[in-house]
Amino acid sequence: MKTDIQIAQEAQLKPVKEVAEQSGIEEDELEFYGKYKAKLSEELWERIQERPDGKLVLVTAINPTPAGEGKTTTTVGLGQAMVKLGKNALIALREPSLGPCFGIKGGAAGGGYAQVVPMEDLNLHFTGDFHAITSANNLLAAMLDNHIQQGNALKIDPRQIVWKRCLDMNDRVLRNIVVGLGNKMDGMVREDHFVITVASEIMAILCLAENLQDLKKRLGRIIVAYNFDGEPVTAEDLQATGAMTALLKDAIKPNLIQTLEHTPALVHGGPFANIAHGCNSVRATRMAMKLSDITITEAGFGADLGAEKFLDIKCRMAGLKPDAVVLVATVRALKYNGGIKKEELAKENLEALEKGIVNLEKHIENMQKYGVPIIVTLNSFVTDTKAEHEFVRRFCEEKGCQFALSEVWEKGGEGGIALAEKVLDTLEHKESNFHTLYPDEMSLEDKIETIAKEIYGAANVLYEPAAKKQLAKIASLGFDTFPVCMAKNQYSLSDDANRLGRPENFDLHIREVYVNAGAGFVVALTGAIMTMPGLPKVPAANGIDVTEDGKITGLF
Amino acid sequence: MKTDIQIAQEAQLKPVKEVAEQSGIEEDELEFYGKYKAKLSEELWERIQERPDGKLVLVTAINPTPAGEGKTTTTVGLGQAMVKLGKNALIALREPSLGPCFGIKGGAAGGGYAQVVPMEDLNLHFTGDFHAITSANNLLAAMLDNHIQQGNALKIDPRQIVWKRCLDMNDRVLRNIVVGLGNKMDGMVREDHFVITVASEIMAILCLAENLQDLKKRLGRIIVAYNFDGEPVTAEDLQATGAMTALLKDAIKPNLIQTLEHTPALVHGGPFANIAHGCNSVRATRMAMKLSDITITEAGFGADLGAEKFLDIKCRMAGLKPDAVVLVATVRALKYNGGIKKEELAKENLEALEKGIVNLEKHIENMQKYGVPIIVTLNSFVTDTKAEHEFVRRFCEEKGCQFALSEVWEKGGEGGIALAEKVLDTLEHKESNFHTLYPDEMSLEDKIETIAKEIYGAANVLYEPAAKKQLAKIASLGFDTFPVCMAKNQYSLSDDANRLGRPENFDLHIREVYVNAGAGFVVALTGAIMTMPGLPKVPAANGIDVTEDGKITGLF
Repeated sequence: MKTDIQIAQEAQLKPVKEVAEQSGIEEDELEFYGKYKAKLSEELWERIQERPDGKLVLVTAINPTPAGEGKTTTTVGLGQAMVKLGKNALIALREPSLGPCFGIKGGAAGGGYAQVVPMEDLNLHFTGDFHAITSANNLLAAMLDNHIQQGNALKIDPRQIVWKRCLDMNDRVLRNIVVGLGNKMDGMVREDHFVITVASEIMAILCLAENLQDLKKRLGRIIVAYNFDGEPVTAEDLQATGAMTALLKDAIKPNLIQTLEHTPALVHGGPFANIAHGCNSVRATRMAMKLSDITITEAGFGADLGAEKFLDIKCRMAGLKPDAVVLVATVRALKYNGGIKKEELAKENLEALEKGIVNLEKHIENMQKYGVPIIVTLNSFVTDTKAEHEFVRRFCEEKGCQFALSEVWEKGGEGGIALAEKVLDTLEHKESNFHTLYPDEMSLEDKIETIAKEIYGAANVLYEPAAKKQLAKIASLGFDTFPVCMAKNQYSLSDDANRLGRPENFDLHIREVYVNAGAGFVVALTGAIMTMPGLPKVPAANGIDVTEDGKITGLF
Repeated sequence: MKTDIQIAQEAQLKPVKEVAEQSGIEEDELEFYGKYKAKLSEELWERIQERPDGKLVLVTAINPTPAGEGKTTTTVGLGQAMVKLGKNALIALREPSLGPCFGIKGGAAGGGYAQVVPMEDLNLHFTGDFHAITSANNLLAAMLDNHIQQGNALKIDPRQIVWKRCLDMNDRVLRNIVVGLGNKMDGMVREDHFVITVASEIMAILCLAENLQDLKKRLGRIIVAYNFDGEPVTAEDLQATGAMTALLKDAIKPNLIQTLEHTPALVHGGPFANIAHGCNSVRATRMAMKLSDITITEAGFGADLGAEKFLDIKCRMAGLKPDAVVLVATVRALKYNGGIKKEELAKENLEALEKGIVNLEKHIENMQKYGVPIIVTLNSFVTDTKAEHEFVRRFCEEKGCQFALSEVWEKGGEGGIALAEKVLDTLEHKESNFHTLYPDEMSLEDKIETIAKEIYGAANVLYEPAAKKQLAKIASLGFDTFPVCMAKNQYSLSDDANRLGRPENFDLHIREVYVNAGAGFVVALTGAIMTMPGLPKVPAANGIDVTEDGKITGLF
């Protein structure tokens, strides 16, 4: 069997200008990065901005398991299938992070015959967006420490610095560091932290900004620290806004590439789906909706995290109204949720499937709360049995959802036709009555409680004393109209990663709360969330190589 | 008077494919980064590699002063002038570093009417080469610390780790840090350091590598630490070579842009000129020599540092033979060397000029030691007087050098015609008998002494005890055939930055010696060399902005 990178490298790519033509984009509106990647220019946006919007389809999933779900694969395959059916469809995905690529996870560009390409470029530096974010993040940090070094006119309290440095690398020793050692010319000593670039607030800002001017305003509002009187100090106070914006002037432009079957794909931005909102950029989604009749996008992790934030944060801020939600599951993952070990998932087990399907049930119920029609799809594996497929189909239909099998990993667009037809049927015949879960004017506590009870199924929300104080402070600063971005482990609907299926009667523990004033949301942390990953015993990097003729191997 | 960025932004750029056509490069051999930047492909190299080489002209300068010399400006202007004279000329420059751009220095793309463009792109992320180097550097660091965390099978001595992390940012608090704080899962605690990206050994490697395979071999040889037995541990031992090479596969390709007058310019690589060799990439220089009749390149700082290393390191390793050296001086800088304060340089002062011209004299004598014909040029300022110009002209002619005034800052290529004609005359009528200053087989101590006495004019070389030990160790490891890369302040020929003019009877103090096994040279440090700059009281970043219509202002 061929690996993903082999399939990707054997693909015959079209020049990106031909891919652009399919969506009616002119060559002059592209900024090329080699033959197969391009950024979409501001001029393109000016030409198309008054057009009516196409339909918007969100692909989300049940809680992730080690068995694999294939959300990106389904998104890509569905796009390919739409094009096979003669539709003007566009895919809008997140950019993968460089760090995990060298760790455990490998790349993120779909899989099998449902991938976006060029896969190596996408997984390495791509068009430099993440490097630009890293630079802007670290310029702000350098200007902050320099301000303290040069006299600290703003009276920044070194104990209350909240801005962290970042690198797009899995590097655990940078989680907790001390900077400024040496002598007088080497800065003030203080504790500091690096996060991975996707966890930088600037990533969230880039993905929520409407345009360059909105980006600039949001950057200026970033709170970097508090002064000795407890008042926020912002990037604007440090006079860093202009230079940061200059660093990001190209990064805000969406990137165009293609799928293995030449479906145009906008791949842009990639914030964490726990401490941030986990969706591709508003700018790319908007452009896609102007350029196509059907935009297919995805959100990170399971529907409890990614879809909830897509709907309550991104759609709220950008005024987007999704027309349908595709909920991806696998028989293997449902059986895993039913308590079966990873090694035994290949065997038919209807009992475990019945036990585990409550996870899917809860996500269906959750999505129904937003008023959006749902299509459930099973990303099929060779080990699945017909009986298992039938069981899931019946379950979904009883729940009032459309259902389709997907075989895009094995067959590409052809394997997604059944799903695409259900999606088209839904778009044509079912109305979306989309609304957010909670209104802006609800208090932050009530927002947290609404998400915890309605989406996660918690019985109670418990706050650590510090979190209660932080909530009060955030409200006193006037940020209580912001939506809440929940940071929770992705494996369980609860805050305990081991509670699979559909946990009930549990308490959700809020450990810490802080505001991302530039992004425009309040982050509520449940448990410890890792914002700088480490490398495993044998990093994926060990196996990556470049052949004599310049071909990359070992990237997956 | 217009600022550099105003002149650059008003320029009418040609599409880079037209610029490439001038040098006989086909569109298919370009990898575009927008309309005005491109990388030159491996296919181009394969097509042109058997061609005879064109002539190679090195532009260098007297010791830099706060008065400014204009070496890059002269290089660009000379290229523009050559094209005006109908010559097939190409410029090969270094890429500027992002860090200093936000500090004191501003950008580096020439000045006035002798600039390379697009200036903002060049000074910000350009084609991402430096970001790729930062990533490769920090991947290696992460793999090193991960190796220790995962059991330290290679027995790396944490006290003898020599590999440092890097960022392309002026950020003094990262000079001396402690990493790995927290708990067991957060790594081993140790002292660490960040350097600016241009100081990474990977930058030197990228600039000295013949091709991707040579790059890979050199990366593998990098010494990252010593084990508890004192033996070197390399990047190859950490199995990091392949992944680092993958990160650098595009960065090794030279970048093509243009001057204000559309002269093609290869801008590629930019290592520090103190702890590294300070020249653009071998790959770009080679390509330029295959594509043009005359390649004009430059080296960092004054001729004692940049030119010495260009000739003794880069030309030695790559087998290049320069045909002429252009030595840039200004009347102002010579008077400054004669003891005049910066504020009084605008006044005619022949006495100070006579006193300070000994600096130029020494650099002329130095360059003559390499057997290469010399053309001295005065980068003219409005405050210079005719008598001052005449004094320098006579001095140079008595020294057996050609001389020409240059007015490229004010007049572009037109202002460099006189200089270009002298260079052409030299190339036609004077033979270059280029040879390096010392042979490979000379001992490291003798190499250091040769440079110190012959080039700097030192009376003696004094070693700190540690440096002596390090030399012995390096020799015992078999690296004694490497050339020496001297790290010295750039302002004086001596190791004391305050001794201007032509210091004599001084001792040169060698504080530390280490080997860059991947780059292929031994670094000898005289005094403290800063490898991570800081930001000034008012950073240039404060003044950088982006206008409503997306134009960058305040970059200089």
